[in-house]
Amino acid sequence: MKFSEKVKKCGLSPMRKFHPYAVAAVAAGKKIYHLNIGQPDIETPEAAFEAVRHFTQPVLEYAPSPGIPELITAVQNYYDKLGIHFAESEILVTTGGSEALQIALNCILDDGDEIIIPEPFYPNYSTFVYTTGASIRPLTTTPEEGYFYADRARIEALINEKTRAILVTNPGNPTGVVLSPAEMRMIADVAKEHGLFLIGDEVYREFVYGGEALASMGQFEDAAENVILIDSVSKRFSACGARIGVIISRNAELMAHAMKYCQARLSVATLDQVAAAALYTVPGDYFAAVREEYKRRRDTVVSKLKEIPGVVCKCPEGAFYLMAKLPVDSADAFQQWLLTDFDDNGETVMFAPGESFYGTPGKGVDEIRIAYVLKEADLARACDLLALGIKAYNAK
Amino acid sequence: MKFSEKVKKCGLSPMRKFHPYAVAAVAAGKKIYHLNIGQPDIETPEAAFEAVRHFTQPVLEYAPSPGIPELITAVQNYYDKLGIHFAESEILVTTGGSEALQIALNCILDDGDEIIIPEPFYPNYSTFVYTTGASIRPLTTTPEEGYFYADRARIEALINEKTRAILVTNPGNPTGVVLSPAEMRMIADVAKEHGLFLIGDEVYREFVYGGEALASMGQFEDAAENVILIDSVSKRFSACGARIGVIISRNAELMAHAMKYCQARLSVATLDQVAAAALYTVPGDYFAAVREEYKRRRDTVVSKLKEIPGVVCKCPEGAFYLMAKLPVDSADAFQQWLLTDFDDNGETVMFAPGESFYGTPGKGVDEIRIAYVLKEADLARACDLLALGIKAYNAK
Repeated sequence: MKFSEKVKKCGLSPMRKFHPYAVAAVAAGKKIYHLNIGQPDIETPEAAFEAVRHFTQPVLEYAPSPGIPELITAVQNYYDKLGIHFAESEILVTTGGSEALQIALNCILDDGDEIIIPEPFYPNYSTFVYTTGASIRPLTTTPEEGYFYADRARIEALINEKTRAILVTNPGNPTGVVLSPAEMRMIADVAKEHGLFLIGDEVYREFVYGGEALASMGQFEDAAENVILIDSVSKRFSACGARIGVIISRNAELMAHAMKYCQARLSVATLDQVAAAALYTVPGDYFAAVREEYKRRRDTVVSKLKEIPGVVCKCPEGAFYLMAKLPVDSADAFQQWLLTDFDDNGETVMFAPGESFYGTPGKGVDEIRIAYVLKEADLARACDLLALGIKAYNAK
Repeated sequence: MKFSEKVKKCGLSPMRKFHPYAVAAVAAGKKIYHLNIGQPDIETPEAAFEAVRHFTQPVLEYAPSPGIPELITAVQNYYDKLGIHFAESEILVTTGGSEALQIALNCILDDGDEIIIPEPFYPNYSTFVYTTGASIRPLTTTPEEGYFYADRARIEALINEKTRAILVTNPGNPTGVVLSPAEMRMIADVAKEHGLFLIGDEVYREFVYGGEALASMGQFEDAAENVILIDSVSKRFSACGARIGVIISRNAELMAHAMKYCQARLSVATLDQVAAAALYTVPGDYFAAVREEYKRRRDTVVSKLKEIPGVVCKCPEGAFYLMAKLPVDSADAFQQWLLTDFDDNGETVMFAPGESFYGTPGKGVDEIRIAYVLKEADLARACDLLALGIKAYNAK
C-alpha cells in the first residue's frame, strides 16, 4: 500500500524527538530540567474550571460550527479593547491555533505554491504547509543579527509568481523577536502591493517586555483583504489543553471558504468554548502579573547565557522563547549526550535543537531553542547545567 | 488574491444549507420539526460531567499527542469486550471522528488518487477527500435496492491503478445499511487482494436493531495492514460536543505517519478526554436502553413513511438515519417550499435533501435523509407534516 507523498515529507516534532532518551534518563534516576516544551507552569485562571463545573445542559451537543456566540463576543470585546473591531462574521472558533492555521493554509495554498516564512520558524508550520502541497520559502535570519527579518528588500527578493502569502509569528516563536509598528506597517504594505495574504500568528501577543502597546496585523484596515489572524487562548491564559483558537479575517471570501472546513468538522469542543469565554473575563492585571513573571525569567536566562563562553544570544523582546547559538558541533548530538552521558549531581537539561526550526538544509545545526516556562531558580540551574554540559562535551 | 483550487471544490454542509430559511420561518412564528441534523436528544451519561467537575489540576496542560493513557486504555477495554485486541500504539485519540478521517485520508491520498465510497455517503467525506487532492469514486446504490452496495463485482469494477482505498460507513450514514458478517469479510478480502486500505467508519456500531453481534472491520486480523478504523464517542454516548474520536490501525507505518499529524496539532482537548474516558465506564445496559429507544423511533418513522403514496423506503437496519425517495420533482425545492410556503397549524418539517449525499451529478435529487433523533410523538407528527406537505406541494 502506498502512503501520501505529502505526509512522507513531514517529520515528527523536534520538541519531542528526544523523548525516548529522556525516558531512559529518568529511569536511570536523572532529574531533567525541561526547556524544550512551551508548556507554561502558570496556573490557568479558575474562571475556566468554574464555568465548566457550572455547565448544566443534559446533552453535550455539537456547538455551532463557527463557535458559540459567547466566545465570539468575548473575542470581539478583547480586540475592541485593542482598538480593533471585528464583526461576528469575521471570527471563526477553531480547535487551537493549530486548526486555525491548517484551515487558513488549506484555503489559500495549492500544489506548487509558496509561502514566505522567516526562519527559524515553528516547525509544525512545515507539516501544515506540506499537507497543502505547497512549500515554505524561508526568509533566512542569523543569531548574530538577533534573528532580524523585517527588511523590505530581503522579503521582496523572495517573492515570485508562485508566492501566495507571508506568515509572521509576532511575537516570534522560536526567536522572541517582536516587530516594531513601522516594521509591521512595512510588511503589510509588501503584502498589499504584491497581492499576498499576510498571516499574523499572534498567539503570544501579550508577551512583550519593553512596555510596547499590544499590536496586531489586524490594525491595518487598508490591508483588510490581505490579513488573516491566528489567535489562541493556549498561551494567553495558560490553557493549552483547552485547544481553543480563532481564525480572524475581514476578507469575506476567505471566511466563506474557511466556513466550509468549520462545517465539515462540525464543531469545536463545547465545554472548552464555555471555558474559553470565561477566560476572557479575567481582569487586566492578570496579564500584567504574568508579563512581569516571564520578563524576570527571560532576564535570568539571558544573563546566565551571556556568561557562557561562545554562546551567541541577543535578548529577545517577546514570547517566552529564545534561540541561542552554542559552541558545539551539533545541538542534536549534544542533546543526546546530555541525556545519555552527562549529569551534575544527578541532574541534566533538555532544549529543542535548532535544525528543525529552519527550512534551509544545514541551518541551525549549532543552535537551540529555550522555552523559559519554569520558575527562575529552576531556569538558573538549567542554564548552569547547560554551561557545565558544554564544557564537558567539548573537553571529551 | 488566489484561493486554493481544492477548497473551491468544497461546499457548505447540506444539513445546514436551509438554515437561513429556517430562521425566517421561525421568525414568522412557525414551529419546525428537525429531521435534518444527527444531534441526538438522548442525555449524555452523567459520568462525563462528573469527571470534568472533579478535574483538579491547576494548569490545563496539553495532553500527550497520542491521547491520555486513561482514554486509550478505555478504548482498548471496549474493543477487548468485542473480542478484538488493539495495542496502545494502535490507537490515537483525535478531535472527533472528523479529525480521525482527515488524518487517515491525508496519510494515504495524493493528488489524482481515488477512494471508493458507496453513495449516498456522509457529505463531509467530500471536503476531506478534496483537501488531499484525490477524488471519490462513488459506488452507486438505489433506493429500490435499499441502498445495497456489498457486491464484489460492483466494487471490483471501480478499482483501477489510481485506487488507494475503500471507505465504508457501517452502520451507514445516511442509509442505515448494516453489512452482514459475510459482506464485511468479502470487502476485507477485496481490499487485501487489491492492496487497498479499507477505512471502516464505525461510529454507529452500537446502533443495530436486528439483534446482530456488534461487528468491526478490525476483527479481520489477516487484513491488519489494510484496515483503518474511525470511531467516536459522539453518537455512542450522545456526546457530540466532546469532539473525541480515535483512529485505530494495526498498520505500524500508517500509525507512524498519523502520529506526525497528531504531534503537529499538539494534542486533543484535555478535559474532553477525561470526560470520554469516564463515558466508557457506563454499564452495558445503557446501550441496550438506547438501542431500544432508537429502534422504536425507526419503526415509527418507517411505518409512517410506508403510508405515504409514492415514497420508496426500505426499513434500515442500523444507525439513526434513513434515506427515502419522495414523489416530488426536487427535494431541494420542496424543502425550501416547506419553509417558505407551507404549514399545518403553524408547523412544518426539515430534512436533509439527498443530492449532496451523492458523488454522481444528478443523483438523489428526489431523495431525502431523515435523522430519527426526536421523541416518537414528534417523529410521528413530523412524518404527518411530510405527508401533508407532499400532497399540497404536488397539488399546487
